Amino acid sequence: MNDMSDAPMVAERRGRRGGGGAARRAERTARKIENARPILRRIPEFEILNAEALEIIERNAETVLEEIGVAFTENPAALARWREAGADVDGDRVRIPRGLARSLCATAPAIFTQHARNAEKSVDIGGKNTVLAPVYGPPFVRDLDGGRRYATMEDFRNFVKLAYLSKNIHHSGGTVCEPTDIAVNKRHLDMLLAHMTLSDKPFMGSVTAPERAVDSVKMCEILFGADFVAENTVLTSLVNINSPLTFDATMMGALETYAAAGQACIVSPFIVGGAMAPVSVAGTLTQVLAEVLAGVAYAQLIRPGAPVIFGAFVTSIDMNSGAPTFGTPEASKILYGAGQLARRLGLPFRSGGALCGSKLPDAQAAYETANTLNAMLLGGVNFCLHSAGWLEGGLVASLEKFVLDADQLGALASVAAGVDVSEDAQAMDAIREVGPGGHYLGCAHTQRHFKDAFWRSEVLDYKPFETWSEEGGRDSQALAAERARRMLDEYEAPALDQAVREALEAFVARRKAEEPDAFA
Amino acid sequence: MNDMSDAPMVAERRGRRGGGGAARRAERTARKIENARPILRRIPEFEILNAEALEIIERNAETVLEEIGVAFTENPAALARWREAGADVDGDRVRIPRGLARSLCATAPAIFTQHARNAEKSVDIGGKNTVLAPVYGPPFVRDLDGGRRYATMEDFRNFVKLAYLSKNIHHSGGTVCEPTDIAVNKRHLDMLLAHMTLSDKPFMGSVTAPERAVDSVKMCEILFGADFVAENTVLTSLVNINSPLTFDATMMGALETYAAAGQACIVSPFIVGGAMAPVSVAGTLTQVLAEVLAGVAYAQLIRPGAPVIFGAFVTSIDMNSGAPTFGTPEASKILYGAGQLARRLGLPFRSGGALCGSKLPDAQAAYETANTLNAMLLGGVNFCLHSAGWLEGGLVASLEKFVLDADQLGALASVAAGVDVSEDAQAMDAIREVGPGGHYLGCAHTQRHFKDAFWRSEVLDYKPFETWSEEGGRDSQALAAERARRMLDEYEAPALDQAVREALEAFVARRKAEEPDAFA
Repeated sequence: MNDMSDAPMVAERRGRRGGGGAARRAERTARKIENARPILRRIPEFEILNAEALEIIERNAETVLEEIGVAFTENPAALARWREAGADVDGDRVRIPRGLARSLCATAPAIFTQHARNAEKSVDIGGKNTVLAPVYGPPFVRDLDGGRRYATMEDFRNFVKLAYLSKNIHHSGGTVCEPTDIAVNKRHLDMLLAHMTLSDKPFMGSVTAPERAVDSVKMCEILFGADFVAENTVLTSLVNINSPLTFDATMMGALETYAAAGQACIVSPFIVGGAMAPVSVAGTLTQVLAEVLAGVAYAQLIRPGAPVIFGAFVTSIDMNSGAPTFGTPEASKILYGAGQLARRLGLPFRSGGALCGSKLPDAQAAYETANTLNAMLLGGVNFCLHSAGWLEGGLVASLEKFVLDADQLGALASVAAGVDVSEDAQAMDAIREVGPGGHYLGCAHTQRHFKDAFWRSEVLDYKPFETWSEEGGRDSQALAAERARRMLDEYEAPALDQAVREALEAFVARRKAEEPDAFA
Repeated sequence: MNDMSDAPMVAERRGRRGGGGAARRAERTARKIENARPILRRIPEFEILNAEALEIIERNAETVLEEIGVAFTENPAALARWREAGADVDGDRVRIPRGLARSLCATAPAIFTQHARNAEKSVDIGGKNTVLAPVYGPPFVRDLDGGRRYATMEDFRNFVKLAYLSKNIHHSGGTVCEPTDIAVNKRHLDMLLAHMTLSDKPFMGSVTAPERAVDSVKMCEILFGADFVAENTVLTSLVNINSPLTFDATMMGALETYAAAGQACIVSPFIVGGAMAPVSVAGTLTQVLAEVLAGVAYAQLIRPGAPVIFGAFVTSIDMNSGAPTFGTPEASKILYGAGQLARRLGLPFRSGGALCGSKLPDAQAAYETANTLNAMLLGGVNFCLHSAGWLEGGLVASLEKFVLDADQLGALASVAAGVDVSEDAQAMDAIREVGPGGHYLGCAHTQRHFKDAFWRSEVLDYKPFETWSEEGGRDSQALAAERARRMLDEYEAPALDQAVREALEAFVARRKAEEPDAFA
């Protein structure tokens, strides 16, 4: 278990032994990949709620827990734990006395380290850090020729490769798309194997059944060593709450497995506003806070100190069609407010992403995405799932969108760096040198800094109209497709100890052989 | 001259006489157009600079004014005014003693009313208001068939019509595109006539020559009545500073005309970072502040109390190609910082817009635009020029982009409304009614609010994939083109007193006859 004080030490120790050897070999043998550390936000958070609003919402959330309660369905052990902790249990309804959930949450770390097999890519989740991970969950992909079809394991591997190659993506994520060509009860094995072998960034575990969570931990024991996994967090997994106010046995089974193993969970209401929560921002925030308080408290009942993240995935809804909508003002307001509630609770915060409803990586997709990503950064998100590749309300993973989003993440990192007011950055020498009517391009200050003074996109077009026209007048989607193709062509896997690889493959083969394929 | 205290009274008086008759007739006869009031920001501003950074930049700006000074070129009268005010004048260089410019700025109003001929559309510029105006200046248009060509007066009229029909655009703007088929020395007359007759929203005056500013005021005297114009602000015009630190005679001629007439000017450095200002954010902010201090102080020397706006148009630059770039992190940081400086100076603030470098209304355009518009809102902009229709670094005005941007402005207005925490918005009744595992769509709270609970785009696609596919799988550009076409087809001009219209047309005809066409 890591907390704020020992995380750096643990990370350092990790660099010296265990996976450190693989990392050093990777350095020697593989093509050098540029990698940014997680974003360190040197800027304030945007706080949309004033003190009065925060107090109202916090008071109401406690009222929800106390009077209405939450349901832990088909989970007698959970009910027993809650009864033991002092809650009022009636059937599967758990009513939590005012203040109890919040006090249980106090043992959860404000920041924790998730280790990667390449120690240089381990991430601290919490505080002023923002860790960016790819899209999660789409059953479809839109491929480079523009077709929309069911995702396969081959697609999955491509997205893992792109995330590995993307400088500003710090985390390999989890179900980057659903490999629908693999049996439902076995695909977690292939997905984990892909994250472990095709990337050296941190990744997520399976949550679709408790035994798949167990498999996830076991494969990590092979990759990192069992001793290391016993003492450190190497998985962050996504545990959705069945909003409103319901914790089902499948997701809780995964949470119980991971929390007991000291592995991290994002405890995350999944809300389409107006359907799974009230239509109002304040009402939704109240329910989100109540749900997260109950879920995080439960993780602490399993193991005090288990690392958890305050999640809030909230979209609005088109009341005409019932479709979920993204990049909307309501979603931004909820994100900002939830961030404030998470910080007051002292927990790392997950929200946002490159969310959009558009079917194509077009202007709609980008407006919606940029609205969400800007709110994500200023709202103080610590862990951002879906930060690249999300299309069509999360039904589709898109390579072009991935490349475009990943590029924008670099711009966010640059905003987060804040404003340098060092003497050099004040540039008074330059203003004196150039004077009224002059030109800065040639001055000493510009010459010293021109290479890194401005963020520069690696995919957007900055050419003059005539050049751009002569080259075919391509839009962003076409430019992104070209870049994605080139990245995949040039991909080389990071080095991995051959014995570890074989042990992982053997584990996957054995587990696959143990049960027949299931496709539901 | 308006200041905060008498503006409402003036606006009310305007409703009762003068243009009020025309407004009432418009109400009776014309098709009802939906119109939003300027955005009232019930949210805090995002402040990227801490107190120390602000003090450094403010101190440095005074040093720039005192030691380096600014140039007022080919303008002996301006030099005399500055000498009289206590500045050190040497050639055309004006060195302003520390504190003098800031103290001169104190007479500028923190907020002022710009009147529209329809009193319901008059706008207060300053405070927590955000007034949105269309793109300004593009010599090219991209028309609905996708072609890029020189703009004409017909295009100009179309953009004025779209702005008139766009609910969230509060201002008709100025040079919505350059009508290149009209002589340079006469096009301001046709442009003003279009704003005055095709719309009833407030608009901008000409700045390309002092006599064209005089024409602008004279046409307003016909539209509003000379007595009204003598007492009220009916024009807000864009006076760019020739950065670095240079105030040319053309722009100052326009500023002198308008300030003397009590008409408003945006005093706005126009900066491509690294070319017209240092490559650093802090250095650029220092120069921007020095320039605005000098320009606003000069307007107050012309007429104390003249309404002015603190402008900051700053783009970054691609150091590879020299192209200006938009929606970049540096631009956002400068916008946030400049907003803080403007508020500390007690002036209305202009910045931002739907800025982008893309050649097409594609994903690039939308990422860049949304980055800028989000910073614009949170940065506390009071007057946002270019809020719709800007493409290709401002070289091109696009009808599709206009429609897409104008739609997004509605989302910003909704963010700005903040979070309602009234008892009804807390929705505790709904959470109690629905309970764990329930569904909110049918509950009483949702039924009461579903029509206006969520912002809804009027142009983006929310349809299921199958429906969208069957309808041709159109991207945002195609959907926007269809909407623009429909809007232009359905356009009806607001009513205008026939005698006023004839007097305006006669003025334009007479002024055109007075000089030969000039095309440079």
